[in-house]
Amino acid sequence: MGAMDDEAFMRLALREAEAAGAEDEVPVGCVIVDRKAGKVIAKAHNQRETLKDPTAHAEMIAITAAAESMESWRLEECDLYVTLEPCPMCAGAAALARIRRVVYGASDPKAADLRLNHRVELVGGVMAAECGGILSGYFRGKRAVK
Amino acid sequence: MGAMDDEAFMRLALREAEAAGAEDEVPVGCVIVDRKAGKVIAKAHNQRETLKDPTAHAEMIAITAAAESMESWRLEECDLYVTLEPCPMCAGAAALARIRRVVYGASDPKAADLRLNHRVELVGGVMAAECGGILSGYFRGKRAVK
Repeated sequence: MGAMDDEAFMRLALREAEAAGAEDEVPVGCVIVDRKAGKVIAKAHNQRETLKDPTAHAEMIAITAAAESMESWRLEECDLYVTLEPCPMCAGAAALARIRRVVYGASDPKAADLRLNHRVELVGGVMAAECGGILSGYFRGKRAVK
Repeated sequence: MGAMDDEAFMRLALREAEAAGAEDEVPVGCVIVDRKAGKVIAKAHNQRETLKDPTAHAEMIAITAAAESMESWRLEECDLYVTLEPCPMCAGAAALARIRRVVYGASDPKAADLRLNHRVELVGGVMAAECGGILSGYFRGKRAVK
């Protein structure tokens, strides 16, 4: 599939963006395509205000829906189309989901750095031994089983 | 509230991590505290396998639950405690939610770079004019109303 398909799928994402705008949400839309089956498995639009949920970006809702459709969190055969360049949360989610290809429309100069909007104070190492110990115990157990 | 409180809240997050381990999930736990009210408003643990959802990290579930509890996506008076250093998706979500303070336990040397695990092909500029136009139209409309 080539550039023509990219435009066709982006057009569907744009329709989702329009649906967001009609709900007075920032108009961003997303579709996820199963390349093997050659079909759209998830469509979503930004619903942050409607759901009062800071994680309810179009991509996040679409990724969760696509995983449900595939009955797996691994979306290795899938491409994601989104009308706006993904923020770090959504780019991170796409990587975690092992999405093959992320195709976006408009660039977002602010996408790369959420800290421009809000700076979170970050503190590490609180009860690090206990918190790390439960993880190493878990992975040790996994290796023992294999 | 000081370091004693941090340990007390991290201990609750650890309990959540234990609950994840009991479900054979990677044991990571999270709690979110409303500092104004001085109480825990959300507890969650990693449920990626159970929910078959790549976005179902402890922090993401907790942030969505906290926003539901506060009836707002703005968690400006909230601190997030998590047993493992957040990945970019979760760190991004905390920033989007305007969380005041993220406190973590164990460090994760892989946290900073999801690309170590999986490299997503990124393509930008597909139908950029249409995708950007719907956004600028939306924001122009917002300014006109004010």
